[in-house]
Amino acid sequence: MIEISPETVAQLLYLVHTDPEELQEALGELRPPDIAEALKELPPEAAAKVMAALPFDLAVQVFDEPELTRHRCAIIQHIDPRRVGLLIEAMSSDQRADLFREVEEKDRIRLLATVSEPTRVNLRKLLKYPTSTAGGIMTTEFVSVPSDWTVHQALALISEVGGRKETVYAVYVVDPKSEALVHVVSLRELITAPREENVMDIGSRRPPLTVTPDTDREDAARLISKYNLLAIPVVDAYHHMLGIVTVDDVIDTLVEEQTEEVQRFGGMEALDAPYMEISFLGMIRKRAGWLCALFISEMLTATAMQRFEGEIERAAVLAMFIPLVMSSGGNSGSQATSLVIRALSLQEVRLRDWWRIAMREVPTGLVLGAILGLIGFVRIVLWQEMGIFDYGPHAFLLAVAVGLALVGIVAFGSFAGSMLPFMLKRIGFDPASASAPFVATLVDVTGLVIYFTVAFAVLHGTLL
Amino acid sequence: MIEISPETVAQLLYLVHTDPEELQEALGELRPPDIAEALKELPPEAAAKVMAALPFDLAVQVFDEPELTRHRCAIIQHIDPRRVGLLIEAMSSDQRADLFREVEEKDRIRLLATVSEPTRVNLRKLLKYPTSTAGGIMTTEFVSVPSDWTVHQALALISEVGGRKETVYAVYVVDPKSEALVHVVSLRELITAPREENVMDIGSRRPPLTVTPDTDREDAARLISKYNLLAIPVVDAYHHMLGIVTVDDVIDTLVEEQTEEVQRFGGMEALDAPYMEISFLGMIRKRAGWLCALFISEMLTATAMQRFEGEIERAAVLAMFIPLVMSSGGNSGSQATSLVIRALSLQEVRLRDWWRIAMREVPTGLVLGAILGLIGFVRIVLWQEMGIFDYGPHAFLLAVAVGLALVGIVAFGSFAGSMLPFMLKRIGFDPASASAPFVATLVDVTGLVIYFTVAFAVLHGTLL
Repeated sequence: MIEISPETVAQLLYLVHTDPEELQEALGELRPPDIAEALKELPPEAAAKVMAALPFDLAVQVFDEPELTRHRCAIIQHIDPRRVGLLIEAMSSDQRADLFREVEEKDRIRLLATVSEPTRVNLRKLLKYPTSTAGGIMTTEFVSVPSDWTVHQALALISEVGGRKETVYAVYVVDPKSEALVHVVSLRELITAPREENVMDIGSRRPPLTVTPDTDREDAARLISKYNLLAIPVVDAYHHMLGIVTVDDVIDTLVEEQTEEVQRFGGMEALDAPYMEISFLGMIRKRAGWLCALFISEMLTATAMQRFEGEIERAAVLAMFIPLVMSSGGNSGSQATSLVIRALSLQEVRLRDWWRIAMREVPTGLVLGAILGLIGFVRIVLWQEMGIFDYGPHAFLLAVAVGLALVGIVAFGSFAGSMLPFMLKRIGFDPASASAPFVATLVDVTGLVIYFTVAFAVLHGTLL
Repeated sequence: MIEISPETVAQLLYLVHTDPEELQEALGELRPPDIAEALKELPPEAAAKVMAALPFDLAVQVFDEPELTRHRCAIIQHIDPRRVGLLIEAMSSDQRADLFREVEEKDRIRLLATVSEPTRVNLRKLLKYPTSTAGGIMTTEFVSVPSDWTVHQALALISEVGGRKETVYAVYVVDPKSEALVHVVSLRELITAPREENVMDIGSRRPPLTVTPDTDREDAARLISKYNLLAIPVVDAYHHMLGIVTVDDVIDTLVEEQTEEVQRFGGMEALDAPYMEISFLGMIRKRAGWLCALFISEMLTATAMQRFEGEIERAAVLAMFIPLVMSSGGNSGSQATSLVIRALSLQEVRLRDWWRIAMREVPTGLVLGAILGLIGFVRIVLWQEMGIFDYGPHAFLLAVAVGLALVGIVAFGSFAGSMLPFMLKRIGFDPASASAPFVATLVDVTGLVIYFTVAFAVLHGTLL
């Protein structure tokens, strides 16, 4: 396992300025993704010199690494313009489109002038699609053959173009007249088939699985993962091949979606950039919006508390358990929410299953609430009996009130936490992006009302 | 896009009991993963009948689907024992090992008797490794050739065995004497190379990337993803090939890890099973432990509140903002935690970077706190001035106290939330599994102390 250490980066930086030959030798031992990782750590000028020291083929591979996305624009400024044109021309089409997405307007025009007309057309085609769609992550390099070819012809074509195409492991068979996609064969099926057979006669007889350029990239990823594909074809309304989404893209998509899910779950906008690379102001912007929205909706707790001011004045001891009771509701709500969000995104449950979930969450919440209620009850009685704290003459009733309130609050938390993702999804929101923090607010406010209502019922005539 | 609808499942169930021929026809239109999905919904007896109606090759493919894992044992009970032996024999080795991991002790012995001696040896080898390791998810089907072979010989071997091996897209070259892995070539490199060349002379000259069977499966996944591999070889101490981990396994691993991360983030143990499949008691067990642990640590808030009982009795109005102030600290802590957990698991930051994070989070927290503090201040002054609620003669000072406390609490939340994952990782815990809920507790307790301390300083001599 090779990992780029700060020492390797420092050594490269040193060699850039001293010994070009030794630099080449040091680079020769690294794989393209490792070189890309090192380039991210170098100042753009030094990174450009490293790129210049690489053999062209390797330079293209390094430049094609998706993790370099955010750095390519800066590095390009320091590379000889003629070499830049060649590099861009040789990149894979999806990474090239990403580069043009990142680059500034004025540089875009200059860069477009360095590439050939077919590449420009290709770029224009790819840049139409947002990166959240299959069209936005597809590559236009793939192998396709007419449906009247033999296995031998197809294999011969692959041996010839194989070095250039992003994936040769699936061959797309198109009708010679309509140019529509009619069949997909894997290289594995080709290589084990008799050479003189027609490509249409090998592989599965089912119509090929396809997506459109507007398909959500997550759905494309799910299909590739479910059907164990190495790539899925992207077709237009006439079933013409536009490109393919490969399994590499799926992995990148999964990792990115996971990051977004975790960040949204933490109650903020997705950063869309590595933590250390985002600016201070950018960070504030991504976090302040949600934090303010939550703060303003949490103000409802203050409004709720105002209604119970009298109770608190009469029995300050009640206030002591507010944080405990509130947080328990929040915790049970957060468990339920995370379970349901995940089950929804894995499609283990669908929208119409909401009542099946409710039927599970309410009893689960009641049992969990009873466990916590019992612990809370014992805690108060024990502290009172052991003389650790004096809750006053009605300590036992207070313990009953806290215990009962916990049952209600935890059960409500589980119920609300599990239902909110369904509601958000029903009205067209992404459940992952809002559920967790909103559940907390909802459960906090309701929890206070439950707590004081139960306390009033139990302690009326004694403490209250 | 084909999805299994309840109607399809109902139709299959009907055909199982009525028309075997039409059943075969209906199945012929489905892909193996779709049939597997339908089998999960059927009672085991009906699923077994569907399996019997499938052509053997297709039955093996369906049985190989990872999503059937939890159902295979039940289905097997209803299949003709001779066919069970053949099925198990024909499964891919990693899925076969999974089946034996799930099956009960008494069935295991019976099933072992149905397979051949080589398969038994293979099973014994694979079952040694836990499923969290590369050994636990590897398959033993791969293509290997001696290092003195030519490209032509290697391609001929692939065309011959290609139909049986899980992946033929990488060929592992071993030394004929020591049997150690010395080189890896992709099928793409083979097919584009001159036929008479030696396999050692094509492809990259770098030593092959490998993992050991004890490598964490997440690390194997990360390598495959980083280096865009279709599979990574698993070798022992003598560099002998034990098996390969394929890109399919990586996707499954990523999705599973993502589920665990979300569930742990929600403050519970990972379910390790789909939501609808876990028993009621299992669900309680997975959730109650964490909920109780959090409840007991949240009791510290009650202890903290007891110390401020006097203040609350003198100024009940202070209690009104407890939920608001606490939740803001929790929200900012949860943002910081989710960011850092994710950055750590993507290896964007390492343990030694903790101070760089702290240097970002403290100013970020102060700015965010100032924003919330200002909103809080304005809210109280406005409500007072507009006569919506009467906070008493010292409303302005109360607003100052709440505003200042928010700055401190939000800043502390960001700081504590970002540092806790580092601390947990440092002492050997998985940061994802505990950070989020513990941050909430830590920030709740500290938040109360900050709130009352600030309130005391600002309101001393007036309200307090």
